[in-house]
Amino acid sequence: MKRIAFLMVAVATLAGVVAFTAPASGHADEEASPIYGVKIPAGYRDWKLIAVDHLLVADKVDQLRAQLGNDIAIKAFKEGKVPFPDGSIIAAIHWTRVPSEDNNKVLAGPFPGALSFVVGSPVNVQFMVKDSKKYAATGGWGFADFKDGKPGDKALHETCFACHTPAKDRDYVFTRYAP
Amino acid sequence: MKRIAFLMVAVATLAGVVAFTAPASGHADEEASPIYGVKIPAGYRDWKLIAVDHLLVADKVDQLRAQLGNDIAIKAFKEGKVPFPDGSIIAAIHWTRVPSEDNNKVLAGPFPGALSFVVGSPVNVQFMVKDSKKYAATGGWGFADFKDGKPGDKALHETCFACHTPAKDRDYVFTRYAP
Repeated sequence: MKRIAFLMVAVATLAGVVAFTAPASGHADEEASPIYGVKIPAGYRDWKLIAVDHLLVADKVDQLRAQLGNDIAIKAFKEGKVPFPDGSIIAAIHWTRVPSEDNNKVLAGPFPGALSFVVGSPVNVQFMVKDSKKYAATGGWGFADFKDGKPGDKALHETCFACHTPAKDRDYVFTRYAP
Repeated sequence: MKRIAFLMVAVATLAGVVAFTAPASGHADEEASPIYGVKIPAGYRDWKLIAVDHLLVADKVDQLRAQLGNDIAIKAFKEGKVPFPDGSIIAAIHWTRVPSEDNNKVLAGPFPGALSFVVGSPVNVQFMVKDSKKYAATGGWGFADFKDGKPGDKALHETCFACHTPAKDRDYVFTRYAP
């Protein structure tokens, strides 16, 4: 239990709720996040794994999630070094959590009652980009939330930094590196 | 729901059950898995992410899990190519799933009832190594299950291949690449 691991809590959650309760708002043309101007980093899906988690919000959100980091971020995580150096980028990928009937069939024989949950469809992808000068007003981090490749609106992005403030002593990063 | 994603079902599950119900058996000196002779591949924790999942078995297993692949395996996953080429290695890392009180405190304000679950402690790490000649008798795959760096016993490893047989049309790999 010593590890609490992870997450871009509030933004992540909000994004999940938004994804479940409202269609994408009118910013479909944008490629960069409002406020921060963060674009989807090339090749992020191939970055190294920081941690995974599961988020439940009543009947609205049920997500399996993975956080990946670029090499600068991963090095800092492994060294337990804060603040993260400029150039660090953390990606958080969120999928719906769905039962796997295929897996459950296989498991039922040896392990009655076993339940396997796997990733369903993509919900959103979020990024935190460290640039201590450019984003000095928000702890040195720029934030972004994308759904189907399109950034969320300004109101969504206005929630990012405030929600990360409780993790100030970890340089605003909730995620912990999984052993 | 079109994606069923993942997993080294039976072996994984069994390992989880074993981990919860019995201490490591008497093979603490070994470094390679019984039957298959698979050792822990160097640097596997930094491999690319295939998928994540959640496994529940009654009161015995509650795990968050990630599957990583070496470059050969990742390429095959992305191309949807089976059988996997020789040299492919898939790693499955399993952690206990635990509530994050820290995260829940932050979430409680904006999202009453939100529950965040993160990785707790490591349970086991498993590997599938493709070598179509060496492991011809088991679909071309060698299997391994490690807990605290020590391989499980022969009886455990005898279950691997049989449980993977239902995934024969996917070259015995349950895991699907997460979008």
